[in-house]
Amino acid sequence: MPTPPTIEDIRAAAERIKPYCLRTPLLESPHLNEIAGTRILVKPEPLQRTGSFKFRGAFNTISQLGREAKTGGVVAYSSGNHAQGVAAAAKILGLPAVIIMPEDAPAIKIANTRYYGAEVITYHRLNDDREALGERISEERGAVLIRPYDDPRIIAGQGTLGLEIAEDTQASGIKLDAVVSPAGGGGLISGTALAIRSELPQTLVYSAEPEGFDDTARSLASGSRQDNDMEARSICDALLAPSPGELTFAMNRELLEGGLVVSDDEAREAMRQAFLRLKLVVEPGGAVALAAVLSGKLDCQGKTVSVVCSGGNVDPQTYAEILAG
Amino acid sequence: MPTPPTIEDIRAAAERIKPYCLRTPLLESPHLNEIAGTRILVKPEPLQRTGSFKFRGAFNTISQLGREAKTGGVVAYSSGNHAQGVAAAAKILGLPAVIIMPEDAPAIKIANTRYYGAEVITYHRLNDDREALGERISEERGAVLIRPYDDPRIIAGQGTLGLEIAEDTQASGIKLDAVVSPAGGGGLISGTALAIRSELPQTLVYSAEPEGFDDTARSLASGSRQDNDMEARSICDALLAPSPGELTFAMNRELLEGGLVVSDDEAREAMRQAFLRLKLVVEPGGAVALAAVLSGKLDCQGKTVSVVCSGGNVDPQTYAEILAG
Repeated sequence: MPTPPTIEDIRAAAERIKPYCLRTPLLESPHLNEIAGTRILVKPEPLQRTGSFKFRGAFNTISQLGREAKTGGVVAYSSGNHAQGVAAAAKILGLPAVIIMPEDAPAIKIANTRYYGAEVITYHRLNDDREALGERISEERGAVLIRPYDDPRIIAGQGTLGLEIAEDTQASGIKLDAVVSPAGGGGLISGTALAIRSELPQTLVYSAEPEGFDDTARSLASGSRQDNDMEARSICDALLAPSPGELTFAMNRELLEGGLVVSDDEAREAMRQAFLRLKLVVEPGGAVALAAVLSGKLDCQGKTVSVVCSGGNVDPQTYAEILAG
Repeated sequence: MPTPPTIEDIRAAAERIKPYCLRTPLLESPHLNEIAGTRILVKPEPLQRTGSFKFRGAFNTISQLGREAKTGGVVAYSSGNHAQGVAAAAKILGLPAVIIMPEDAPAIKIANTRYYGAEVITYHRLNDDREALGERISEERGAVLIRPYDDPRIIAGQGTLGLEIAEDTQASGIKLDAVVSPAGGGGLISGTALAIRSELPQTLVYSAEPEGFDDTARSLASGSRQDNDMEARSICDALLAPSPGELTFAMNRELLEGGLVVSDDEAREAMRQAFLRLKLVVEPGGAVALAAVLSGKLDCQGKTVSVVCSGGNVDPQTYAEILAG
């Protein structure tokens, strides 16, 4: 297992990504505060370059590659947001990219990954082994594999989001009680938790996941990594990783207070609320932390909670159907 | 006619609203840049408190009222965004508010105005005279009338948006060639133009309007205030003012380079692009400046243009229909 990143790695990542990343603001709505009975500060990563937080980790990682990537470029497997992050970062850095994506990924994610200049190879989510595919292409082409979460450079990059939350609430004199963030493989939540727990030791951090893919919640409860049932289904296409990462879970076990779980319907309702109250387009997986707080999964009456909306890459037809209810 | 505001009034407004307003960032998308053949920096005011820029001017104005508003509070007439801005500002400042709104305003605008604690009185857009209604209620209740645009305090408040664009592009070392902003009565565009022309004298400012409500464009071309045909129809409910304001047009005649006009279909397409590329919910009237640039109404090949998306208060059903195309 690689060595976990430190808060200094997150600070270095923040400097590295600064010219290319949007420092997303914190959004607030009296309606959302009233529904939750708490003050909610939303970190809106759909506004980030490529429509999700994934660009942070991808750029932090790829910009540190040396000559090993000069010929074969990079390769990644991803349900779609890491794909776009890697493709966009590789384009900025002048490297070729091959991305392995599930054939049932949202069309907008596949189209955008190609738009950023990457070659896309699709696989079947249940029948094919995406990690093996990634490693084979890496060997054949001499491409550097950019893992989606179990890499300290990826985690440090995603952790810049937590660092921004800590800095911006401190600068505004806001006492933050908790941070809730979506968890798939755990890169975002582990990096964010590292930043928050380092900067704001009084602030608790919780993961949020969809039902059926609550591997982080169950792993935190049991103390060891638990798998998801691969027959499970969820509309949260960004959060369907088979189990917590080895490195990310080693961090999360120490850093997280607990894991929250929401239904697909609660995620849909959070998407509608983000539309109505924040004017923010959030994809299903990006909405699970907001869903957890709005549906009362966390007792945060009278507290101040920052909620990460992690991405907004959702097909228009799916979005229109969810708005219609 | 009242005296126009100065850049110093805009600076004072910026200090006044700072604790309550979001300093919206500038968003960029390579897709949008490619469509327009220009670098587009979007100022996303749907993210602003109350979902549009209108809170800026409303708060700047109402926070300067003295004892005259202590008893009767404030009254305003508005198609919906000024309504929400006035209602939210009055609530923060502890004043009662009465808002006169067209009965066919989007349901979300009427509901939000009530949510902020205002009393809503509806009128018929064609049969009733909203200005007379506002003045009658003002007299009856001793409420201070907060005009939607023809007031130097309103214009200075809206102008803070232009000041932010000027400051943020200068801080990033970006040479800005033009700013395009929606125009209804002209409060936003006049304040923004005053800030931009004061801070960035090389930067040109253009208004954008929907077909049938292109009174500012025609007034700029003719040199005097022109009325709209009140039989005209547009989906851009925020931009249906009958003619340019007296004060706003006196400013715009000096400050604007010209007026751009888009069709409702071009506004719809800009809304879809804002969804796809920025993850930003924009209402029809809020999208006309983006529509003007994306549809090539301004020759800005190779230039850098800041585009104001002024609001995002659109009903879910309308939005879903527009996404479906």
